[in-house]
Amino acid sequence: MTADRLRFSGQRFAVEYHLDGSTDEARRRADLLCIDQTVEAADHVIPDGPIRNELLGRVEHVEGVGEGVHAALLTFPVELLDGTMSTLLHMSFGMASLQGGVRLANLILPDAALTRIPGPRLGVDGLRAQLEVSARPLLCTVLKPLGLSPDALAELAYEFALGGVDLIKDDQSLGDHPFCPFEERVARCAEVIAAASKKTGRPCLYAPHISGPWPTLLERAAQAKQLGAGALLICPGLTGYDAVAALSGLAALSLPLILHPDFLGSHYVSRDSGIAPSVLFGLLPRLAGADISIYPTYGVGYPVTQADCRGIAQACRTELRTLARTFPTAAGRMNASRIQEMTALYDSDVVFILGSDIRRDPTHIRNACRTFLRLLERR
Amino acid sequence: MTADRLRFSGQRFAVEYHLDGSTDEARRRADLLCIDQTVEAADHVIPDGPIRNELLGRVEHVEGVGEGVHAALLTFPVELLDGTMSTLLHMSFGMASLQGGVRLANLILPDAALTRIPGPRLGVDGLRAQLEVSARPLLCTVLKPLGLSPDALAELAYEFALGGVDLIKDDQSLGDHPFCPFEERVARCAEVIAAASKKTGRPCLYAPHISGPWPTLLERAAQAKQLGAGALLICPGLTGYDAVAALSGLAALSLPLILHPDFLGSHYVSRDSGIAPSVLFGLLPRLAGADISIYPTYGVGYPVTQADCRGIAQACRTELRTLARTFPTAAGRMNASRIQEMTALYDSDVVFILGSDIRRDPTHIRNACRTFLRLLERR
Repeated sequence: MTADRLRFSGQRFAVEYHLDGSTDEARRRADLLCIDQTVEAADHVIPDGPIRNELLGRVEHVEGVGEGVHAALLTFPVELLDGTMSTLLHMSFGMASLQGGVRLANLILPDAALTRIPGPRLGVDGLRAQLEVSARPLLCTVLKPLGLSPDALAELAYEFALGGVDLIKDDQSLGDHPFCPFEERVARCAEVIAAASKKTGRPCLYAPHISGPWPTLLERAAQAKQLGAGALLICPGLTGYDAVAALSGLAALSLPLILHPDFLGSHYVSRDSGIAPSVLFGLLPRLAGADISIYPTYGVGYPVTQADCRGIAQACRTELRTLARTFPTAAGRMNASRIQEMTALYDSDVVFILGSDIRRDPTHIRNACRTFLRLLERR
Repeated sequence: MTADRLRFSGQRFAVEYHLDGSTDEARRRADLLCIDQTVEAADHVIPDGPIRNELLGRVEHVEGVGEGVHAALLTFPVELLDGTMSTLLHMSFGMASLQGGVRLANLILPDAALTRIPGPRLGVDGLRAQLEVSARPLLCTVLKPLGLSPDALAELAYEFALGGVDLIKDDQSLGDHPFCPFEERVARCAEVIAAASKKTGRPCLYAPHISGPWPTLLERAAQAKQLGAGALLICPGLTGYDAVAALSGLAALSLPLILHPDFLGSHYVSRDSGIAPSVLFGLLPRLAGADISIYPTYGVGYPVTQADCRGIAQACRTELRTLARTFPTAAGRMNASRIQEMTALYDSDVVFILGSDIRRDPTHIRNACRTFLRLLERR
């Protein structure tokens, strides 16, 4: 039994795992991950030659990074990637995820892998240009609660848009319910946002939520664009990351993509397993083509730290070949009292996502938006 | 701002969460989940009337189920479901997943919700009929390792099929690599398996791995069927569960679906967050249309217990309206020494998945398969 068609360039991508246990255990587990993350087979079925010598993972180093935790850097041939998110996720954490006590801490892709990944279509610079906002943080408000009719949501959207916000997104709970059908909601909201935008003289992008089975999500995306939506909201935890990459790659669509973390929590809430927030909410969304990545902010009860948020922002915006930068966000019970703290952490390339707080006084929503924008400009 | 189009039948589906903390904390968190899992909004933006009275989750009861753990049963209107897996996952665990210390323990769907979910196309009875195996556990072997050429894998497939196994599946690592292209692999393996099946006079289904972006996975499924594949292997952790439901719903395809847990580990490895194995590996696959659900077996180092496996099997096979039953599996470094233990646990409606062990003697693979089958018949 041969593997005579294997040809490896010698270029490898790196995956950093955090492993529970002693140094000896960490070394043993790292060695096993080299096998489990590639051939997942017992030694007697691994042929000598290129499979054993080149295809298997290689432990580049193992070092302690905390009490009973070791970082193991493994590398794998780039030929095992194919430019899709599914294969990237499988190759970095597919079987490892099942073991427990293993955390995906980082992914380092060489140019040979990155050339197949287009990344965000617009990114920070493209979205700023489209919104005509050169310097300040962006402001995005949310249409909620679930249960309102399209007209009621449009009424709210109109206030937000008159208030001058940059983006208005659906709540992730809005779908295609009989009491709030997708088409009617998108048509009504896009219409009033366009009208308000004409009055203010400022662009304002509406992002309907399109998650659902394929091809429904693609039909929703196309319909949204046709009805005047300026962006799209999607939950990769529900649709898979490749759905995001597919939408990002559609030249005919060409709308900014906002990613929401719905159903992704299991990957990050336990600190000794799952995926580091910088990878889950920073690198993966960026590789999939997110222009904006939403995740919970530290300090309001979610198991996220300030350091996690800093790591996410870095993964969103650090130089990565020619990939555009993704906007990190200040989201999750966000309000004006945290502007200084958030801009100190993120600088100005961040999107503030405002849900309920901006509506404390329901008769002055547009003024509350204007006030928040002034605070963002003056910070 | 009104919600004048809301109409609720009063029928509700139930979600059981396990919550960390004291009884008071559990009650407080359950109350919050009623909001977070529906409108995810502050009190001042929730209008009085049907949204507050009917749309929000309701805590039906909270009770202690262990040291510092409480089970909270919440119900939600069935009108918030739409028959898709994305909406079901969002409604049961979308925002809850982000909190930590919350585990999705069970999902109870009334007929009003189940009528929109077809479930497995074949299930236990249909697959048994197709394989002409009325009573004994089924036997599935695995084509691996990654790195072998289509010819080398076909050579192995031929031995397995001559050995009389019921199913032969790709390893989840096999994709569409230059050294083992999907089309060539499926054509070669399906061809030799058909030839061997003719010799043995016994059906043997080949399940190629088709995970990938949509529409690639759909193209692979159609191509696989056309080339003679008798089943399909797919990883919902990579593709999303709706991809499984979509494949299951395609009458023109009509191939048994085998689900693999690749990349799903984060959901179950931490016992105080994520999703109970019975839901993750039993109920969700069945609702999505899996005929066979693969997951790690207890006793070989994965954080899975015997009770977990029993719970998975029950969710796979318990009466659930008219939904066909899904085969649970004995998988993960499985070998003949565990047959008694596995059939004591699962009874005969189980699929043994054999990876490396059946190939200990590479010159006697077909005999090893025959021996294993005899052991399954005699157990």
